[in-house]
Amino acid sequence: MNLLDQVNSPADLKKLTMDQLPELAKNVREKILEVTSQVGGHLGAGLGTVEMAIALHYVYNSPTDKIIWDTGHQAYPHKLLTGRRDRFHTLRQFGGISGFLTRTESEHDVFGAGHASTAISAAVGFAAARDVLKQNHHVVACVNDGSLTGGMSFEALQNAGHLGTDMLVVLNDNQMFISHRVGAFGAFLAKLTTAGAFRRMEKRVERFLTRMSFYGPYLLRLARRVKVLLFPGVLFEEMGFGYLGPIDGHNLPQLIEVLKAIQQLKGPHVLHVVTKKGRGYEPAESDPIKYHGVTRFNPETGEMVKAPGGPPTYTQVFGRTLVRLAEEDPKIVAITAAMPEGTGLDLFRKEIPKRFYDVGLGEQHAVTFAAGLACGGLKPVVAIYSSFMQRGFDQMIHDVCLQKLPVVFCLDRGGLVGDDGPTHHGTFDLSFCRMMPHLTVMAPKDENELQHMMKTALNLPGPSVIRYPRGAGLGVPMDSQLKLLPLGKGETLRPGADVTLMAIGYPVQACLEAADILAEKGVSAGVVNARFVKPLDREFVVSVARSAPLLVTVEENTVIGGFGDAVRAALEGEKADVRVVGVPDSFVEHGTQSKLRDKVGLSAAKIADRVLDLHRGRLAAR
Amino acid sequence: MNLLDQVNSPADLKKLTMDQLPELAKNVREKILEVTSQVGGHLGAGLGTVEMAIALHYVYNSPTDKIIWDTGHQAYPHKLLTGRRDRFHTLRQFGGISGFLTRTESEHDVFGAGHASTAISAAVGFAAARDVLKQNHHVVACVNDGSLTGGMSFEALQNAGHLGTDMLVVLNDNQMFISHRVGAFGAFLAKLTTAGAFRRMEKRVERFLTRMSFYGPYLLRLARRVKVLLFPGVLFEEMGFGYLGPIDGHNLPQLIEVLKAIQQLKGPHVLHVVTKKGRGYEPAESDPIKYHGVTRFNPETGEMVKAPGGPPTYTQVFGRTLVRLAEEDPKIVAITAAMPEGTGLDLFRKEIPKRFYDVGLGEQHAVTFAAGLACGGLKPVVAIYSSFMQRGFDQMIHDVCLQKLPVVFCLDRGGLVGDDGPTHHGTFDLSFCRMMPHLTVMAPKDENELQHMMKTALNLPGPSVIRYPRGAGLGVPMDSQLKLLPLGKGETLRPGADVTLMAIGYPVQACLEAADILAEKGVSAGVVNARFVKPLDREFVVSVARSAPLLVTVEENTVIGGFGDAVRAALEGEKADVRVVGVPDSFVEHGTQSKLRDKVGLSAAKIADRVLDLHRGRLAAR
Repeated sequence: MNLLDQVNSPADLKKLTMDQLPELAKNVREKILEVTSQVGGHLGAGLGTVEMAIALHYVYNSPTDKIIWDTGHQAYPHKLLTGRRDRFHTLRQFGGISGFLTRTESEHDVFGAGHASTAISAAVGFAAARDVLKQNHHVVACVNDGSLTGGMSFEALQNAGHLGTDMLVVLNDNQMFISHRVGAFGAFLAKLTTAGAFRRMEKRVERFLTRMSFYGPYLLRLARRVKVLLFPGVLFEEMGFGYLGPIDGHNLPQLIEVLKAIQQLKGPHVLHVVTKKGRGYEPAESDPIKYHGVTRFNPETGEMVKAPGGPPTYTQVFGRTLVRLAEEDPKIVAITAAMPEGTGLDLFRKEIPKRFYDVGLGEQHAVTFAAGLACGGLKPVVAIYSSFMQRGFDQMIHDVCLQKLPVVFCLDRGGLVGDDGPTHHGTFDLSFCRMMPHLTVMAPKDENELQHMMKTALNLPGPSVIRYPRGAGLGVPMDSQLKLLPLGKGETLRPGADVTLMAIGYPVQACLEAADILAEKGVSAGVVNARFVKPLDREFVVSVARSAPLLVTVEENTVIGGFGDAVRAALEGEKADVRVVGVPDSFVEHGTQSKLRDKVGLSAAKIADRVLDLHRGRLAAR
Repeated sequence: MNLLDQVNSPADLKKLTMDQLPELAKNVREKILEVTSQVGGHLGAGLGTVEMAIALHYVYNSPTDKIIWDTGHQAYPHKLLTGRRDRFHTLRQFGGISGFLTRTESEHDVFGAGHASTAISAAVGFAAARDVLKQNHHVVACVNDGSLTGGMSFEALQNAGHLGTDMLVVLNDNQMFISHRVGAFGAFLAKLTTAGAFRRMEKRVERFLTRMSFYGPYLLRLARRVKVLLFPGVLFEEMGFGYLGPIDGHNLPQLIEVLKAIQQLKGPHVLHVVTKKGRGYEPAESDPIKYHGVTRFNPETGEMVKAPGGPPTYTQVFGRTLVRLAEEDPKIVAITAAMPEGTGLDLFRKEIPKRFYDVGLGEQHAVTFAAGLACGGLKPVVAIYSSFMQRGFDQMIHDVCLQKLPVVFCLDRGGLVGDDGPTHHGTFDLSFCRMMPHLTVMAPKDENELQHMMKTALNLPGPSVIRYPRGAGLGVPMDSQLKLLPLGKGETLRPGADVTLMAIGYPVQACLEAADILAEKGVSAGVVNARFVKPLDREFVVSVARSAPLLVTVEENTVIGGFGDAVRAALEGEKADVRVVGVPDSFVEHGTQSKLRDKVGLSAAKIADRVLDLHRGRLAAR
């Protein structure tokens, strides 16, 4: 008898007895393992929050009560308990359920999540709205320790403390985040969970409980009975929060009892819950970094199904090239915001640790920190995923570009990232970077060009951006000598009389294939690799535009404000027929990269179709 | 004998005796009063940091030692002591010295500043660069209590604490920031400066000093002699910082002695300095909000020179209209990030306090908080200056637009703001907003249209932006009935056969005047008020484009990615000659708005000149 099969909603969950819940937790873990071992996904975080999710849905009444999960990795158990069990095998697949929280997917996903540190802000909003509307439901934000280190969480805590509204922040402390906890705040949390802190308990608990006229004595009894440790976490107390914890996040009866007690408290509270990432699955418990996000694996052994050998990823090429360049130039330093493995900087950390900085979860700081490093005489390379770079937009303008500082931004996950979906697609970067004065913006057509662009960027006197896609390169030969690319000019890869496809970055290859398809249909299509979004040499663009009666620009970026707009601007005053192909002005769902590219019209076949239409339209109009 | 006249650099300052410094402080204050009473500027903050600036430059060796000021308001004394005395009367005027820190202005401005909360990040970068390069100078960040509440500062403190590098954060605690300290962090700082904290001193000082093997006893002696209070501020200690303070920020001998002592300390430290905003000038001490930023005033009486009566500002119209709308609709709530007066929401705070939120300095949180409010069933209106909105870019995309939430963003200070200069010009908003799916983007041609746009925005099912300029409206009659504007469509204000000027927002008026100038020169210019950047009705734009052989778009926004690009995109496939006029792709200096508008080509005369050139060029090419 699988108890999870009986749970189609939180209401079903509440029909179970307390004794049955551990069995349900087991079933939830089995389901997560079963599915992620087949289709991949985020394994470790969800295994750590099984009891938390069960306890929350056992105690609170979602969706009347608002349970807001930060980031979303940790929400698989929540998904399984809220009516998505039978669709869970479609996780992160095109048309299937999302890997993150999504309002349109379930009434229980009251707030979407993808980027970290948003949950407390949203929860303060929900709580304030409830107060204005004189409603009386509960609001809970579930935040892991990594997300809490983002500055936005700090802003939200301050605001909640100031408002004094009733809300609960469940701090899911798995004592590491994506790779490992960095920064002083991590050390602070660690201290809370050590014996030293426990020793201070007795005096503090008294002070804490004297503030609670009615509920204090009950909590004290409760604390003694279930061995919950209550003492004020100084940081949260200073922010105006009551602090409770740390408690064991895998002890269901305790969790439930404490949550029920907290429901009676007034004002904002933090419940510090200590969990183990990967809990209940030995391979993930012992190597949480490896099992944070997984591809298909054998659940018996934990062995990942090896991807067939292939070309290196852009991430790998970036990582290796940066180490190579930094070995030659002692001024090069590398910065990541809590993503050393994801960005490929783990290699740099290993090889040149003294010039490696993981600043923790904080893109705003990462950018201005790099500006400071540049002012101090170094050559900083900031590696941040494209969509996360959105967090440092103001700092790029205000601290880097305005001051013309030679900071190199390497934006991995540019374009459509696939399974992670709309919150993670890097489809705005070419546009938001293009508007910044003094900034050079490049995108390589393949992994070989990436290394030349890195060399070029590090040679510039001012700031620059290189953006490249998620996944494997094309497998092209890698030049051993790195060279400087001429600024603002691209290269013609293939001449064509009817139409020119002018592409930037990854779609160059699709355009070459589209040109083959078009050739079969009797259309002569040229292909130009633009290399630069900015600067864009006007003479070069004009010569490209004049080479054929129709110019089609192609980018894996929103059609608004990016490469296509740049080409049109360069052609101001020219009589050119320019058509812009890119990601439509909408958010793109999750699915494989190739599926999504085809869907938005960026596969070779779709590009060819589109160009054929445009070409025929032109002929017909004459 | 004016001592300030002898100080042409920090080296000159060091030639003075300790006894002379209070007199120098007096001279610095006199100079600040003399100049700001004549030309306006930020008065209160600078008066509060006179002794801090003198002490820092007396003890440290700028620019070898790096003194990094946050925000810049507080840096007038620093400017006066670093060779800018004789140019100080040109403050914030075109061609004169900047009101903020600017690297190009002085070698002592080691890092530019304008937006808050960047100094600690930059300082960590300077310190890390020094460590890599094996140099041994000092790095000091001067941060006021308001800036410290920004999430970015929290990210930076964590990173500094983690690195453990030698640096000092001077916390200039004037116990309020721009309007007044909000948020729980303010309460925390207040607590540090109260008697309660002092009582805890003795025990803590001992604990603190036992950690410092060599220097501890000396500090203890010092503390007793100068009555400096040393005890660990918990929050900073938890972040890995040593905490010293609070000390009196107007006692020069103490400041100097403590700073000298700190130079010997290893690792990151915070020195908590309590200052009084407006210190030494009675009117500013007693009304620090009024004297934060001043226009011309009588230094004897403090009386501001009244601006001649004129039309209301956009800020006032926004504030009044929102109160009016909120009185009719109980779901409307208002959010500011520490700028109630600047945004005009002080009226809302006064009239409808229960639906008013000042979230403190934190645009990231402000946006997602609003998203939460919208999910909770309310209609949030977020009022943030255009350039500060850059801080919430990711949250607008990720939390508001992706979820199609009905949040209304009202961006004051859109376009060229004048005296505050490049960090504060709101010249990117039309571009960064235009790229966001589901977002409606509007700009009113005058203050009457602003109120209709607010009504329209609050009636939309999804998110929207209204951006408007700093300063007075045009003085047009105000409709008493608010109406809904048709989406995506503008209005033709004046027909013209030779050229159409299609403008958005403030420049519509300049285009009408330009059309008059052009008419005198025999050119028939039509003028269209576009109203919308997005959506932009294609039929409407096509009809505008067909009305004359030349279409010139005009916007007070970067020419990259904004309204002009939107018009070109709408005309894809049309044979139209579109020319884009806007703020060039560079940062614009400070000066009056009218001066700057003329300089970048957005005055009526310059628009007319440009159009005449284009028109004649077309005729010549035929």
